[in-house]
Amino acid sequence: MHSFKIVRRVEFSETDMAGIVHYSNFFRYMESAEHGFFRSLGLTIASHNANSIGWPRVHADCDFRRPLRFEDTVEVELLVKEKRERSIVYAFIFRKTNTDPVEEVARGTLAVACIRKDPVTGAMSSVAIPEEIASLIEAAPEALLSESGR
Amino acid sequence: MHSFKIVRRVEFSETDMAGIVHYSNFFRYMESAEHGFFRSLGLTIASHNANSIGWPRVHADCDFRRPLRFEDTVEVELLVKEKRERSIVYAFIFRKTNTDPVEEVARGTLAVACIRKDPVTGAMSSVAIPEEIASLIEAAPEALLSESGR
Amino acid sequence: MHSFKIVRRVEFSETDMAGIVHYSNFFRYMESAEHGFFRSLGLTIASHNANSIGWPRVHADCDFRRPLRFEDTVEVELLVKEKRERSIVYAFIFRKTNTDPVEEVARGTLAVACIRKDPVTGAMSSVAIPEEIASLIEAAPEALLSESGR
Amino acid sequence: MHSFKIVRRVEFSETDMAGIVHYSNFFRYMESAEHGFFRSLGLTIASHNANSIGWPRVHADCDFRRPLRFEDTVEVELLVKEKRERSIVYAFIFRKTNTDPVEEVARGTLAVACIRKDPVTGAMSSVAIPEEIASLIEAAPEALLSESGR
Repeated sequence: MHSFKIVRRVEFSETDMAGIVHYSNFFRYMESAEHGFFRSLGLTIASHNANSIGWPRVHADCDFRRPLRFEDTVEVELLVKEKRERSIVYAFIFRKTNTDPVEEVARGTLAVACIRKDPVTGAMSSVAIPEEIASLIEAAPEALLSESGR
Repeated sequence: MHSFKIVRRVEFSETDMAGIVHYSNFFRYMESAEHGFFRSLGLTIASHNANSIGWPRVHADCDFRRPLRFEDTVEVELLVKEKRERSIVYAFIFRKTNTDPVEEVARGTLAVACIRKDPVTGAMSSVAIPEEIASLIEAAPEALLSESGR
Repeated sequence: MHSFKIVRRVEFSETDMAGIVHYSNFFRYMESAEHGFFRSLGLTIASHNANSIGWPRVHADCDFRRPLRFEDTVEVELLVKEKRERSIVYAFIFRKTNTDPVEEVARGTLAVACIRKDPVTGAMSSVAIPEEIASLIEAAPEALLSESGR
Repeated sequence: MHSFKIVRRVEFSETDMAGIVHYSNFFRYMESAEHGFFRSLGLTIASHNANSIGWPRVHADCDFRRPLRFEDTVEVELLVKEKRERSIVYAFIFRKTNTDPVEEVARGTLAVACIRKDPVTGAMSSVAIPEEIASLIEAAPEALLSESGR
Protein backbone atom coordinates (compact mmCIF):
# COMPACT_ATOMS: atom_id res chain seq x y z
CA MET A 1 0.00 0.00 0.00
CA HIS A 2 1.14 3.52 -0.71
CA SER A 3 -1.75 5.79 0.28
CA PHE A 4 -4.60 6.30 2.69
CA LYS A 5 -7.25 8.91 3.44
CA ILE A 6 -9.03 9.99 6.59
CA VAL A 7 -11.81 12.54 7.00
CA ARG A 8 -12.28 14.53 10.21
CA ARG A 9 -14.61 17.28 11.35
CA VAL A 10 -12.86 20.22 13.00
CA GLU A 11 -13.56 20.32 16.75
CA PHE A 12 -14.11 23.45 18.83
CA SER A 13 -11.11 22.67 21.04
CA GLU A 14 -8.88 22.63 17.93
CA THR A 15 -9.63 26.28 17.13
CA ASP A 16 -7.84 29.29 18.62
CA MET A 17 -8.79 32.90 19.28
CA ALA A 18 -8.13 33.74 15.62
CA GLY A 19 -11.20 31.59 14.89
CA ILE A 20 -9.24 28.98 12.93
CA VAL A 21 -7.61 25.62 13.57
CA HIS A 22 -4.38 26.11 15.54
CA TYR A 23 -1.48 25.18 13.29
CA SER A 24 -0.09 22.59 15.71
CA ASN A 25 -3.21 20.50 15.06
CA PHE A 26 -2.26 19.91 11.42
CA PHE A 27 0.61 17.82 12.80
CA ARG A 28 -1.84 15.86 14.96
CA TYR A 29 -4.00 15.31 11.86
CA MET A 30 -0.97 13.98 9.92
CA GLU A 31 -0.22 11.48 12.66
CA SER A 32 -3.84 10.43 12.78
CA ALA A 33 -3.68 9.60 9.05
CA GLU A 34 -0.38 7.71 9.57
CA HIS A 35 -1.96 5.57 12.30
CA GLY A 36 -5.05 4.94 10.19
CA PHE A 37 -2.73 3.84 7.36
CA PHE A 38 -1.11 1.31 9.71
CA ARG A 39 -4.52 0.01 10.81
CA SER A 40 -5.50 -0.34 7.13
CA LEU A 41 -2.50 -2.72 6.83
CA GLY A 42 -3.66 -4.76 9.81
CA LEU A 43 -0.90 -3.20 11.93
CA THR A 44 -0.76 -0.86 14.89
CA ILE A 45 1.83 1.82 15.41
CA ALA A 46 1.93 0.99 19.09
CA SER A 47 2.86 -2.53 20.04
CA HIS A 48 2.63 -3.28 23.70
CA ASN A 49 5.38 -5.86 24.24
CA ALA A 50 8.58 -4.66 25.82
CA ASN A 51 11.03 -5.19 22.97
CA SER A 52 8.74 -3.76 20.37
CA ILE A 53 9.62 -1.30 17.64
CA GLY A 54 8.63 2.36 17.63
CA TRP A 55 8.46 5.20 15.12
CA PRO A 56 9.89 8.46 16.51
CA ARG A 57 9.42 11.52 14.32
CA VAL A 58 12.68 12.91 12.88
CA HIS A 59 11.26 15.68 10.68
CA ALA A 60 7.93 17.38 10.11
CA ASP A 61 6.89 20.33 7.98
CA CYS A 62 3.69 21.91 6.75
CA ASP A 63 2.72 24.69 4.31
CA PHE A 64 -0.52 26.41 5.22
CA ARG A 65 -2.55 27.91 2.37
CA ARG A 66 -6.05 28.42 3.71
CA PRO A 67 -7.52 28.30 7.21
CA LEU A 68 -9.78 25.56 8.56
CA ARG A 69 -12.70 26.56 10.79
CA PHE A 70 -15.01 24.88 13.31
CA GLU A 71 -17.09 22.07 11.79
CA ASP A 72 -15.23 22.14 8.48
CA THR A 73 -14.65 18.61 7.22
CA VAL A 74 -11.06 17.98 6.27
CA GLU A 75 -9.72 15.09 4.22
CA VAL A 76 -6.13 14.16 4.96
CA GLU A 77 -4.50 12.15 2.18
CA LEU A 78 -1.34 10.25 3.06
CA LEU A 79 1.11 9.20 0.35
CA VAL A 80 4.26 7.17 1.01
CA LYS A 81 6.92 9.43 -0.45
CA GLU A 82 9.96 7.30 0.36
CA LYS A 83 10.47 3.88 1.88
CA ARG A 84 14.04 3.50 3.09
CA GLU A 85 15.62 0.61 5.00
CA ARG A 86 15.27 2.29 8.40
CA SER A 87 12.77 5.08 7.86
CA ILE A 88 9.65 6.19 5.99
CA VAL A 89 8.77 9.62 4.60
CA TYR A 90 5.09 10.46 4.22
CA ALA A 91 3.55 13.33 2.22
CA PHE A 92 0.14 14.73 3.18
CA ILE A 93 -2.46 16.81 1.36
CA PHE A 94 -5.20 18.52 3.39
CA ARG A 95 -8.46 19.34 1.62
CA LYS A 96 -11.57 21.08 2.92
CA THR A 97 -14.43 18.98 1.60
CA ASN A 98 -17.46 20.93 2.84
CA THR A 99 -17.00 23.49 0.07
CA ASP A 100 -17.81 23.06 -3.60
CA PRO A 101 -15.35 22.68 -5.17
CA VAL A 102 -13.15 20.98 -2.62
CA GLU A 103 -10.29 23.30 -1.57
CA GLU A 104 -6.72 22.30 -0.84
CA VAL A 105 -5.75 23.95 2.45
CA ALA A 106 -2.29 22.59 3.34
CA ARG A 107 0.50 20.16 2.49
CA GLY A 108 2.93 18.52 4.81
CA THR A 109 5.71 15.96 5.22
CA LEU A 110 6.56 13.62 8.06
CA ALA A 111 9.72 11.49 8.31
CA VAL A 112 9.76 8.71 10.88
CA ALA A 113 12.58 6.37 11.92
CA CYS A 114 12.17 2.73 12.83
CA ILE A 115 13.69 2.00 16.25
CA ARG A 116 13.83 -0.87 18.70
CA LYS A 117 13.67 -0.19 22.42
CA ASP A 118 15.89 -2.30 24.65
CA PRO A 119 13.49 -4.06 27.06
CA VAL A 120 15.92 -3.64 29.97
CA THR A 121 17.62 -0.29 29.53
CA GLY A 122 14.91 1.44 27.50
CA ALA A 123 17.59 2.71 25.10
CA MET A 124 16.37 3.16 21.51
CA SER A 125 18.42 2.07 18.51
CA SER A 126 17.74 2.54 14.83
CA VAL A 127 16.83 -0.75 13.12
CA ALA A 128 15.73 -1.96 9.70
CA ILE A 129 11.95 -1.92 9.25
CA PRO A 130 10.82 -5.51 10.04
CA GLU A 131 10.06 -7.46 6.86
CA GLU A 132 6.42 -8.16 7.89
CA ILE A 133 5.84 -4.39 7.92
CA ALA A 134 8.15 -3.38 5.07
CA SER A 135 6.49 -5.89 2.72
CA LEU A 136 3.16 -4.08 3.11
CA ILE A 137 4.40 -0.57 2.34
CA GLU A 138 5.65 0.87 -0.94
CA ALA A 139 6.40 4.32 -2.28
CA ALA A 140 3.53 5.97 -4.14
CA PRO A 141 3.89 6.27 -7.93
CA GLU A 142 5.87 9.28 -9.13
CA ALA A 143 2.77 10.69 -10.83
CA LEU A 144 0.78 10.86 -7.60
CA LEU A 145 3.66 12.44 -5.71
CA SER A 146 4.44 15.06 -8.33
CA GLU A 147 0.77 15.97 -8.46
CA SER A 148 1.01 16.44 -4.72
CA GLY A 149 3.87 18.84 -5.28
CA ARG A 150 6.06 16.85 -2.93
CA MET B 1 2.99 21.00 53.44
CA HIS B 2 -0.59 21.79 52.60
CA SER B 3 -0.52 24.40 49.84
CA PHE B 4 1.33 25.63 46.79
CA LYS B 5 0.96 28.31 44.13
CA ILE B 6 1.98 28.55 40.52
CA VAL B 7 1.61 31.47 38.12
CA ARG B 8 1.22 30.99 34.37
CA ARG B 9 0.67 33.30 31.42
CA VAL B 10 -2.14 32.17 29.10
CA GLU B 11 -0.77 30.90 25.78
CA PHE B 12 -2.32 31.47 22.36
CA SER B 13 -2.75 27.74 21.78
CA GLU B 14 -4.81 27.50 24.97
CA THR B 15 -7.50 29.84 23.61
CA ASP B 16 -10.41 28.81 21.42
CA MET B 17 -12.55 30.57 18.80
CA ALA B 18 -14.60 32.19 21.59
CA GLY B 19 -11.43 34.16 22.38
CA ILE B 20 -11.02 32.63 25.85
CA VAL B 21 -9.09 29.76 27.45
CA HIS B 22 -10.70 26.45 26.50
CA TYR B 23 -12.20 24.95 29.64
CA SER B 24 -10.25 21.69 29.32
CA ASN B 25 -7.08 23.67 30.00
CA PHE B 26 -8.17 24.51 33.55
CA PHE B 27 -7.70 20.81 34.27
CA ARG B 28 -4.22 20.94 32.77
CA TYR B 29 -3.48 23.95 34.98
CA MET B 30 -4.64 22.05 38.09
CA GLU B 31 -2.33 19.17 37.30
CA SER B 32 0.53 21.56 36.69
CA ALA B 33 0.04 22.98 40.21
CA GLU B 34 -0.14 19.43 41.64
CA HIS B 35 3.18 18.51 40.01
CA GLY B 36 4.77 21.76 41.19
CA PHE B 37 3.56 20.93 44.70
CA PHE B 38 5.32 17.57 44.50
CA ARG B 39 8.52 19.20 43.26
CA SER B 40 8.30 21.65 46.18
CA LEU B 41 8.44 18.57 48.45
CA GLY B 42 11.51 17.24 46.68
CA LEU B 43 9.37 14.62 44.95
CA THR B 44 8.30 13.91 41.41
CA ILE B 45 4.92 12.61 40.40
CA ALA B 46 6.54 10.38 37.81
CA SER B 47 9.08 7.88 39.04
CA HIS B 48 10.81 5.95 36.33
CA ASN B 49 11.46 2.59 37.95
CA ALA B 50 9.22 -0.27 37.00
CA ASN B 51 7.48 -0.99 40.30
CA SER B 52 6.89 2.64 41.08
CA ILE B 53 3.71 4.22 42.32
CA GLY B 54 1.39 6.38 40.25
CA TRP B 55 -1.46 8.81 40.84
CA PRO B 56 -4.42 8.21 38.51
CA ARG B 57 -7.18 10.79 38.65
CA VAL B 58 -10.47 9.48 40.05
CA HIS B 59 -12.49 12.70 40.10
CA ALA B 60 -12.16 16.22 38.76
CA ASP B 61 -14.49 19.19 38.77
CA CYS B 62 -14.34 22.90 38.09
CA ASP B 63 -16.68 25.89 38.43
CA PHE B 64 -15.99 28.64 35.92
CA ARG B 65 -16.87 32.19 36.95
CA ARG B 66 -14.96 34.47 34.60
CA PRO B 67 -13.06 33.85 31.37
CA LEU B 68 -9.29 33.93 30.96
CA ARG B 69 -7.82 35.49 27.82
CA PHE B 70 -4.52 35.44 25.92
CA GLU B 71 -1.60 36.79 27.97
CA ASP B 72 -3.61 36.98 31.19
CA THR B 73 -1.51 35.85 34.14
CA VAL B 74 -3.27 33.25 36.24
CA GLU B 75 -2.31 32.16 39.74
CA VAL B 76 -3.36 28.62 40.60
CA GLU B 77 -3.45 27.98 44.35
CA LEU B 78 -3.46 24.34 45.47
CA LEU B 79 -4.76 23.38 48.90
CA VAL B 80 -4.70 19.83 50.26
CA LYS B 81 -8.35 19.30 51.08
CA GLU B 82 -8.14 15.72 52.34
CA LYS B 83 -5.30 13.29 52.93
CA ARG B 84 -6.61 9.75 53.13
CA GLU B 85 -4.68 6.50 53.45
CA ARG B 86 -4.84 5.72 49.74
CA SER B 87 -5.80 8.98 48.09
CA ILE B 88 -5.49 12.76 48.18
CA VAL B 89 -8.09 15.41 47.36
CA TYR B 90 -6.84 18.81 46.22
CA ALA B 91 -8.80 22.07 46.00
CA PHE B 92 -7.76 24.79 43.56
CA ILE B 93 -8.49 28.49 43.28
CA PHE B 94 -7.74 30.28 40.01
CA ARG B 95 -7.09 34.03 40.13
CA LYS B 96 -6.37 36.47 37.31
CA THR B 97 -3.52 38.60 38.63
CA ASN B 98 -3.04 41.09 35.78
CA THR B 99 -6.08 43.04 36.91
CA ASP B 100 -6.35 45.33 39.93
CA PRO B 101 -7.85 44.02 42.10
CA VAL B 102 -7.00 40.39 41.45
CA GLU B 103 -10.10 38.51 40.26
CA GLU B 104 -11.07 34.97 41.16
CA VAL B 105 -11.97 33.20 37.93
CA ALA B 106 -12.55 29.54 38.85
CA ARG B 107 -12.42 26.86 41.54
CA GLY B 108 -11.81 23.18 41.15
CA THR B 109 -11.20 19.86 42.86
CA LEU B 110 -9.03 16.91 41.92
CA ALA B 111 -9.04 13.53 43.67
CA VAL B 112 -6.14 11.18 42.95
CA ALA B 113 -5.57 7.59 44.06
CA CYS B 114 -2.22 6.11 45.00
CA ILE B 115 -1.52 2.95 42.98
CA ARG B 116 1.35 0.55 42.43
CA LYS B 117 1.97 -0.90 39.00
CA ASP B 118 3.02 -4.54 38.84
CA PRO B 119 6.40 -4.51 37.05
CA VAL B 120 5.57 -7.71 35.14
CA THR B 121 1.87 -7.58 34.32
CA GLY B 122 1.44 -3.80 34.37
CA ALA B 123 -1.72 -4.22 36.45
CA MET B 124 -2.41 -1.34 38.83
CA SER B 125 -3.55 -1.86 42.42
CA SER B 126 -4.57 0.67 45.03
CA VAL B 127 -1.97 1.01 47.80
CA ALA B 128 -1.39 3.12 50.90
CA ILE B 129 0.53 6.32 50.19
CA PRO B 130 4.19 5.50 51.01
CA GLU B 131 5.26 6.95 54.34
CA GLU B 132 8.09 9.03 52.83
CA ILE B 133 5.46 10.86 50.77
CA ALA B 134 2.59 10.84 53.27
CA SER B 135 4.79 12.37 55.96
CA LEU B 136 5.33 15.48 53.80
CA ILE B 137 1.67 16.18 53.05
CA GLU B 138 -1.08 17.36 55.38
CA ALA B 139 -4.58 18.71 54.98
CA ALA B 140 -4.82 22.50 54.87
CA PRO B 141 -6.33 24.23 57.94
CA GLU B 142 -10.11 24.38 57.98
CA ALA B 143 -9.99 28.18 57.81
CA LEU B 144 -8.11 28.20 54.50
CA LEU B 145 -10.41 25.60 52.99
CA SER B 146 -13.63 27.27 54.07
CA GLU B 147 -12.35 30.56 52.67
CA SER B 148 -11.81 28.67 49.44
CA GLY B 149 -15.45 27.60 49.55
CA ARG B 150 -14.42 23.97 49.25
CA MET C 1 -34.47 15.55 21.73
CA HIS C 2 -32.86 14.49 24.98
CA SER C 3 -29.91 12.28 24.09
CA PHE C 4 -27.15 11.68 21.58
CA LYS C 5 -24.18 9.35 21.12
CA ILE C 6 -20.82 9.72 19.45
CA VAL C 7 -18.08 7.13 18.99
CA ARG C 8 -14.40 8.07 18.77
CA ARG C 9 -11.16 6.13 18.49
CA VAL C 10 -8.49 7.23 20.98
CA GLU C 11 -5.66 9.07 19.23
CA PHE C 12 -1.96 8.80 20.08
CA SER C 13 -1.73 12.51 20.88
CA GLU C 14 -4.48 12.07 23.49
CA THR C 15 -2.38 9.66 25.56
CA ASP C 16 0.21 10.64 28.15
CA MET C 17 3.36 9.01 29.55
CA ALA C 18 1.20 6.83 31.83
CA GLY C 19 0.05 5.13 28.61
CA ILE C 20 -3.58 6.23 29.02
CA VAL C 21 -5.82 9.05 27.80
CA HIS C 22 -4.96 12.26 29.65
CA TYR C 23 -7.90 13.15 31.87
CA SER C 24 -8.34 16.62 30.34
CA ASN C 25 -9.38 14.92 27.09
CA PHE C 26 -12.54 13.49 28.67
CA PHE C 27 -13.74 17.10 28.84
CA ARG C 28 -12.93 17.57 25.15
CA TYR C 29 -14.88 14.38 24.42
CA MET C 30 -17.91 15.71 26.35
CA GLU C 31 -17.90 18.90 24.34
CA SER C 32 -17.59 16.96 21.13
CA ALA C 33 -20.76 15.04 22.04
CA GLU C 34 -22.53 18.31 22.94
CA HIS C 35 -21.67 19.80 19.54
CA GLY C 36 -22.76 16.64 17.74
CA PHE C 37 -26.05 16.83 19.66
CA PHE C 38 -26.55 20.37 18.35
CA ARG C 39 -25.78 19.28 14.79
CA SER C 40 -28.30 16.45 15.20
CA LEU C 41 -30.88 19.19 15.88
CA GLY C 42 -29.89 21.08 12.74
CA LEU C 43 -28.09 23.66 14.88
CA THR C 44 -24.52 24.71 15.40
CA ILE C 45 -23.02 25.75 18.69
CA ALA C 46 -21.04 28.45 16.94
CA SER C 47 -22.99 31.01 15.01
CA HIS C 48 -20.89 33.45 13.10
CA ASN C 49 -22.97 36.61 13.18
CA ALA C 50 -21.91 39.33 15.58
CA ASN C 51 -24.88 39.40 17.94
CA SER C 52 -25.16 35.66 18.19
CA ILE C 53 -25.62 33.60 21.31
CA GLY C 54 -22.91 31.51 22.93
CA TRP C 55 -22.67 28.73 25.51
CA PRO C 56 -19.91 29.32 28.06
CA ARG C 57 -19.22 26.45 30.44
CA VAL C 58 -20.10 27.19 34.08
CA HIS C 59 -19.41 23.78 35.61
CA ALA C 60 -17.79 20.52 34.58
CA ASP C 61 -17.02 17.33 36.46
CA CYS C 62 -15.97 13.79 35.70
CA ASP C 63 -15.52 10.54 37.64
CA PHE C 64 -12.90 8.25 36.15
CA ARG C 65 -13.34 4.53 36.72
CA ARG C 66 -11.17 2.79 34.15
CA PRO C 67 -8.44 4.05 31.81
CA LEU C 68 -8.76 4.44 28.05
CA ARG C 69 -5.79 3.49 25.85
CA PHE C 70 -4.58 4.18 22.32
CA GLU C 71 -6.99 2.90 19.64
CA ASP C 72 -9.72 2.05 22.14
CA THR C 73 -13.12 3.00 20.77
CA VAL C 74 -15.13 5.06 23.20
CA GLU C 75 -18.84 5.79 23.03
CA VAL C 76 -19.89 9.04 24.66
CA GLU C 77 -23.59 9.16 25.50
CA LEU C 78 -25.08 12.59 26.18
CA LEU C 79 -28.29 12.95 28.17
CA VAL C 80 -30.03 16.26 28.83
CA LYS C 81 -30.18 16.27 32.61
CA GLU C 82 -31.85 19.65 33.10
CA LYS C 83 -33.24 22.28 30.75
CA ARG C 84 -33.59 25.60 32.55
CA GLU C 85 -34.62 28.96 31.15
CA ARG C 86 -31.06 30.22 30.76
CA SER C 87 -28.89 27.11 30.99
CA ILE C 88 -28.63 23.41 30.19
CA VAL C 89 -27.05 20.62 32.23
CA TYR C 90 -25.81 17.56 30.35
CA ALA C 91 -24.84 14.17 31.80
CA PHE C 92 -22.35 11.94 29.98
CA ILE C 93 -21.53 8.24 30.15
CA PHE C 94 -18.28 7.00 28.60
CA ARG C 95 -18.11 3.38 27.50
CA LYS C 96 -15.22 1.42 25.97
CA THR C 97 -16.81 -0.53 23.14
CA ASN C 98 -13.84 -2.55 21.85
CA THR C 99 -14.17 -4.96 24.75
CA ASP C 100 -16.81 -7.66 25.24
CA PRO C 101 -18.78 -6.84 27.25
CA VAL C 102 -18.71 -3.08 26.78
CA GLU C 103 -17.17 -1.39 29.85
CA GLU C 104 -18.25 1.86 31.42
CA VAL C 105 -15.12 3.94 31.97
CA ALA C 106 -16.31 7.35 33.19
CA ARG C 107 -19.26 9.64 33.89
CA GLY C 108 -19.40 13.39 33.71
CA THR C 109 -21.55 16.49 33.88
CA LEU C 110 -21.38 19.77 31.99
CA ALA C 111 -23.47 22.87 32.76
CA VAL C 112 -23.58 25.59 30.11
CA ALA C 113 -25.16 29.04 30.22
CA CYS C 114 -26.89 30.75 27.32
CA ILE C 115 -25.39 34.19 26.70
CA ARG C 116 -25.66 36.95 24.12
CA LYS C 117 -22.57 38.90 23.12
CA ASP C 118 -23.00 42.62 22.51
CA PRO C 119 -21.89 43.20 18.91
CA VAL C 120 -20.21 46.50 19.82
CA THR C 121 -18.71 46.06 23.27
CA GLY C 122 -18.26 42.29 23.20
CA ALA C 123 -19.76 42.10 26.69
CA MET C 124 -21.64 38.87 27.42
CA SER C 125 -24.99 38.80 29.21
CA SER C 126 -27.05 35.85 30.34
CA VAL C 127 -30.23 35.42 28.25
CA ALA C 128 -33.11 32.99 27.93
CA ILE C 129 -32.45 30.14 25.51
CA PRO C 130 -34.02 31.26 22.20
CA GLU C 131 -37.32 29.49 21.55
CA GLU C 132 -36.15 27.97 18.25
CA ILE C 133 -33.44 26.15 20.21
CA ALA C 134 -35.34 25.52 23.45
CA SER C 135 -38.21 23.90 21.56
CA LEU C 136 -35.86 21.19 20.26
CA ILE C 137 -34.36 20.19 23.59
CA GLU C 138 -35.98 18.42 26.53
CA ALA C 139 -34.78 16.74 29.69
CA ALA C 140 -34.21 13.00 29.40
CA PRO C 141 -36.72 10.74 31.18
CA GLU C 142 -36.03 10.15 34.87
CA ALA C 143 -35.46 6.45 34.20
CA LEU C 144 -32.59 7.07 31.80
CA LEU C 145 -30.98 9.58 34.11
CA SER C 146 -31.21 7.45 37.22
CA GLU C 147 -29.72 4.54 35.31
CA SER C 148 -26.89 6.89 34.46
CA GLY C 149 -26.38 7.50 38.16
CA ARG C 150 -26.74 11.22 37.59
CA MET D 1 15.90 43.08 18.15
CA HIS D 2 16.77 39.82 16.44
CA SER D 3 16.60 37.15 19.09
CA PHE D 4 14.86 35.98 22.24
CA LYS D 5 14.93 33.02 24.61
CA ILE D 6 12.32 31.35 26.75
CA VAL D 7 12.72 28.46 29.18
CA ARG D 8 9.90 26.01 29.95
CA ARG D 9 9.56 22.88 32.05
CA VAL D 10 7.92 19.97 30.22
CA GLU D 11 4.42 19.29 31.56
CA PHE D 12 2.83 15.87 32.04
CA SER D 13 0.03 16.67 29.60
CA GLU D 14 2.63 17.38 26.89
CA THR D 15 3.96 13.81 26.98
CA ASP D 16 2.50 10.84 25.09
CA MET D 17 2.43 7.10 25.66
CA ALA D 18 5.98 6.84 24.26
CA GLY D 19 7.02 8.71 27.41
CA ILE D 20 8.29 11.76 25.51
CA VAL D 21 6.96 15.17 24.48
CA HIS D 22 4.49 14.77 21.61
CA TYR D 23 6.04 16.32 18.51
CA SER D 24 3.13 18.70 17.91
CA ASN D 25 4.10 20.50 21.13
CA PHE D 26 7.41 21.67 19.66
CA PHE D 27 5.29 23.88 17.39
CA ARG D 28 3.43 25.24 20.42
CA TYR D 29 6.80 25.95 22.06
CA MET D 30 7.97 27.87 18.94
CA GLU D 31 4.88 30.03 19.00
CA SER D 32 5.33 30.66 22.70
CA ALA D 33 8.85 31.99 22.01
CA GLU D 34 7.50 34.15 19.14
CA HIS D 35 4.89 35.70 21.44
CA GLY D 36 7.47 36.27 24.18
CA PHE D 37 9.66 37.99 21.57
CA PHE D 38 6.78 40.36 20.75
CA ARG D 39 6.20 41.10 24.42
CA SER D 40 9.93 41.84 24.79
CA LEU D 41 9.40 44.54 22.14
CA GLY D 42 6.47 46.01 24.06
CA LEU D 43 4.05 44.51 21.52
CA THR D 44 1.41 41.82 21.59
CA ILE D 45 0.73 39.39 18.80
CA ALA D 46 -2.97 39.71 19.46
CA SER D 47 -4.47 43.15 19.21
CA HIS D 48 -8.10 43.34 20.13
CA ASN D 49 -9.42 46.13 17.91
CA ALA D 50 -11.42 45.11 14.90
CA ASN D 51 -9.17 46.32 12.09
CA SER D 52 -6.02 45.00 13.67
CA ILE D 53 -3.26 43.05 11.99
CA GLY D 54 -2.67 39.33 12.47
CA TRP D 55 0.13 36.86 11.82
CA PRO D 56 -1.14 33.63 10.22
CA ARG D 57 1.42 30.86 9.89
CA VAL D 58 2.37 30.03 6.28
CA HIS D 59 5.10 27.45 6.90
CA ALA D 60 6.47 25.49 9.82
CA ASP D 61 9.08 22.76 10.08
CA CYS D 62 11.07 21.00 12.76
CA ASP D 63 13.93 18.49 12.91
CA PHE D 64 13.85 16.30 16.00
CA ARG D 65 17.19 14.99 17.28
CA ARG D 66 16.60 13.92 20.87
CA PRO D 67 13.45 13.40 22.91
CA LEU D 68 12.27 15.66 25.73
CA ARG D 69 10.76 14.05 28.83
CA PHE D 70 8.54 15.10 31.74
CA GLU D 71 10.11 17.84 33.89
CA ASP D 72 13.00 18.45 31.48
CA THR D 73 13.73 22.15 31.18
CA VAL D 74 13.90 23.29 27.59
CA GLU D 75 15.33 26.57 26.33
CA VAL D 76 13.81 27.77 23.07
CA GLU D 77 15.99 30.32 21.27
CA LEU D 78 14.31 32.42 18.59
CA LEU D 79 16.38 34.09 15.86
CA VAL D 80 14.90 36.35 13.20
CA LYS D 81 16.07 34.61 10.04
CA GLU D 82 14.46 36.94 7.50
CA LYS D 83 12.51 40.17 7.73
CA ARG D 84 10.59 40.78 4.50
CA GLU D 85 8.12 43.55 3.70
CA ARG D 86 5.06 41.38 4.40
CA SER D 87 6.38 38.43 6.37
CA ILE D 88 8.91 37.23 8.93
CA VAL D 89 10.81 33.96 9.09
CA TYR D 90 11.98 32.77 12.49
CA ALA D 91 14.55 30.04 13.27
CA PHE D 92 14.40 28.15 16.57
CA ILE D 93 16.91 26.06 18.51
CA PHE D 94 15.65 23.80 21.30
CA ARG D 95 18.09 22.87 24.06
CA LYS D 96 17.60 20.63 27.10
CA THR D 97 19.21 22.56 29.94
CA ASN D 98 18.79 20.12 32.84
CA THR D 99 21.71 18.05 31.56
CA ASP D 100 25.40 18.89 31.76
CA PRO D 101 26.39 19.74 29.15
CA VAL D 102 23.27 21.30 27.68
CA GLU D 103 21.98 19.20 24.77
CA GLU D 104 20.47 20.48 21.56
CA VAL D 105 17.27 18.52 20.95
CA ALA D 106 15.59 20.11 17.93
CA ARG D 107 15.64 22.95 15.37
CA GLY D 108 12.71 24.53 13.61
CA THR D 109 11.50 27.30 11.34
CA LEU D 110 8.31 29.31 11.31
CA ALA D 111 7.22 31.72 8.54
CA VAL D 112 4.40 34.13 9.34
CA ALA D 113 2.59 36.59 7.08
CA CYS D 114 1.37 40.02 8.12
CA ILE D 115 -2.32 40.45 7.34
CA ARG D 116 -5.07 42.95 8.02
CA LYS D 117 -8.58 41.76 8.72
CA ASP D 118 -11.42 43.78 7.24
CA PRO D 119 -13.53 44.91 10.23
CA VAL D 120 -16.78 44.39 8.31
CA THR D 121 -16.30 41.32 6.13
CA GLY D 122 -13.60 39.59 8.19
CA ALA D 123 -11.63 38.96 4.99
CA MET D 124 -7.85 38.87 5.48
CA SER D 125 -5.45 40.59 3.11
CA SER D 126 -1.66 40.56 3.07
CA VAL D 127 -0.18 43.93 4.10
CA ALA D 128 3.22 45.46 4.73
CA ILE D 129 4.39 45.07 8.34
CA PRO D 130 3.44 48.37 10.06
CA GLU D 131 6.48 50.62 10.53
CA GLU D 132 6.08 50.76 14.33
CA ILE D 133 6.57 46.99 14.40
CA ALA D 134 9.03 46.65 11.51
CA SER D 135 11.35 49.24 13.06
CA LEU D 136 11.82 47.03 16.13
CA ILE D 137 12.74 43.82 14.31
CA GLU D 138 15.86 42.99 12.34
CA ALA D 139 17.39 39.85 10.90
CA ALA D 140 19.94 38.14 13.16
CA PRO D 141 23.59 38.39 12.11
CA GLU D 142 24.72 35.82 9.57
CA ALA D 143 27.14 34.30 12.10
CA LEU D 144 24.38 33.48 14.58
CA LEU D 145 22.17 32.00 11.90
CA SER D 146 24.88 29.86 10.32
CA GLU D 147 25.79 28.56 13.75
CA SER D 148 22.13 27.63 14.10
CA GLY D 149 22.42 25.64 10.87
CA ARG D 150 19.49 27.55 9.44
